[in-house]
Amino acid sequence: MRIDGLQYANWSEKIFRQLREGGVDAIHVTIAYHENFRETVLNFEKWNRWFEQFPDLILKGQTAADIDTARATERTAVFFGFQNPSPIEDDISLVEIVHTLGARFMQLTYNNQSLLASGCYEDEDTGLTRMGKQVVREMNCVGLVVDMSHSGDRSTIAAADHSDRPIAITHANPHAWAPALRNKRDDVIRAVTENGGMFGFSVYPHHLKGKSECSLQDFCEMVARTAERFGATQLGIGTDLCQDQPDSVVEWMRVGRWTKEIDYGEGSKSAPGFPDMPEWFRDNRDFSNIERGLRATGLSEAEVGGIMGGNWYRFFSENFGPKTTT
Amino acid sequence: MRIDGLQYANWSEKIFRQLREGGVDAIHVTIAYHENFRETVLNFEKWNRWFEQFPDLILKGQTAADIDTARATERTAVFFGFQNPSPIEDDISLVEIVHTLGARFMQLTYNNQSLLASGCYEDEDTGLTRMGKQVVREMNCVGLVVDMSHSGDRSTIAAADHSDRPIAITHANPHAWAPALRNKRDDVIRAVTENGGMFGFSVYPHHLKGKSECSLQDFCEMVARTAERFGATQLGIGTDLCQDQPDSVVEWMRVGRWTKEIDYGEGSKSAPGFPDMPEWFRDNRDFSNIERGLRATGLSEAEVGGIMGGNWYRFFSENFGPKTTT
Repeated sequence: MRIDGLQYANWSEKIFRQLREGGVDAIHVTIAYHENFRETVLNFEKWNRWFEQFPDLILKGQTAADIDTARATERTAVFFGFQNPSPIEDDISLVEIVHTLGARFMQLTYNNQSLLASGCYEDEDTGLTRMGKQVVREMNCVGLVVDMSHSGDRSTIAAADHSDRPIAITHANPHAWAPALRNKRDDVIRAVTENGGMFGFSVYPHHLKGKSECSLQDFCEMVARTAERFGATQLGIGTDLCQDQPDSVVEWMRVGRWTKEIDYGEGSKSAPGFPDMPEWFRDNRDFSNIERGLRATGLSEAEVGGIMGGNWYRFFSENFGPKTTT
Repeated sequence: MRIDGLQYANWSEKIFRQLREGGVDAIHVTIAYHENFRETVLNFEKWNRWFEQFPDLILKGQTAADIDTARATERTAVFFGFQNPSPIEDDISLVEIVHTLGARFMQLTYNNQSLLASGCYEDEDTGLTRMGKQVVREMNCVGLVVDMSHSGDRSTIAAADHSDRPIAITHANPHAWAPALRNKRDDVIRAVTENGGMFGFSVYPHHLKGKSECSLQDFCEMVARTAERFGATQLGIGTDLCQDQPDSVVEWMRVGRWTKEIDYGEGSKSAPGFPDMPEWFRDNRDFSNIERGLRATGLSEAEVGGIMGGNWYRFFSENFGPKTTT
């Protein structure tokens, strides 16, 4: 089973076919960065059209059972998420509404302070706000997973502690391996994984040691070491693949509408665009490279199978429904 | 089985308990008159809160199976509808979005011209507009029922002909019995019912012969005569009960935001508010009066059972899901 814990591609029939070629059974796709509620609904609408247009390639994912359907019919189940809480605006009741529409992950922050928590680029990290605590409880109730990939360390640990269901960091790597601002320190990874949460490894070059030049072996050894420390069952892949996106999109991701200046985020003035992907992971057809690389580290077949998809499957099956049924 | 094809009460625990006392297994409730999409979502949110607050009395209705659940657990299944297409604004893709959120009926017009068709108060009835034809097809696809209760005759017949699934007039009476503007001429009732559609009888006084003074016997004899002409299986109840609403609400229903003048609709300057209900139907506890009255007309037990709820049940079971599964 292969499940990718985060992608934000410029979707097309070509990419949907590559998902099939790569044997990807399910993906979590970002459908909002800075969009407000109505704009996010337009993105749900766009996916409804794709499901209508490509019924032989993709289906809407709402529960883990949809992954079983995808496997039985050789398709990919697409699960929705937001990288920012902007879709719920200032309205806690929108949590249930977006869950009904299909959202299954929501980051409490995207780099900046939000109404709920602090982003990893802020100087001050306040932890969860008053509304943040309320919204985490509501997300727990309906089965919308808290994702802290772009949040500050204090906020992330606070969310893991406050949430009464497991949370996730869908796409990042250990800071000790590659000291990027977006990578996570050990106490953050521990807070998330020791409560049943998931940590998804990113192959986005800014999160890799050596960036685009990072070797497959180096990446996979890092995964194996992380498994030793935090348990292989709490780990998955979250490639952060942004295939075929123009550089205007990475600017939108970083700048949104919150500044009139350019924020280069993980890039720089001299390299503002999307970085080149590592040669061993160009697109969805390359998951077999990662699987092969993980096997070469000495991880067991069960561990490799879990990291490639089985662990996300278990996590999806336990966390996407109302609390009372779990 | 008792099902009411339309209500717009000022909802409260009192009314939810009266629904149970009256043995009402399901109701179709209006959640939008002139609301745009975002305002309608606020109304979905309000119902989500009531479902949370009164889980022993009500549940959200999405398919006919929810009525079975309601009966087995002695609750009332609440199905949502709009009396105007304002919630979908100018965006055909919102049809699937509102269906996902739970909408099951949508009127193409409310008295006035809409983007889709003509209302019954317009001087000119254009039939279905270009967008109207597209939206009816989309409603057919997802399982959102076309309701023409407040539409013009030509628009209604055009909708019945253009739709490839049965449509409904959820709340009105025959014009030949009570010549109100909102009541329906025979050719309109025929167009709806001969294609498998449903006609729901209203007990709103402006739709009754003699208004608030109309007798139970007179009402029930009219139902029996309509059954003879159009078939008892295509008939149900749609009380149009607006219990406990202040008169400001009937003004909102009539005026919305489309005029700065007062439109009295079915009322008048001297009687602008809600009329008194007939003494034999004050609230949801009085459905047994109607059932008794129908029996007294000589309708068979099967016919009475169908009109009181069985016919709506069959209609719900056939028309609330995607077209491919019917």
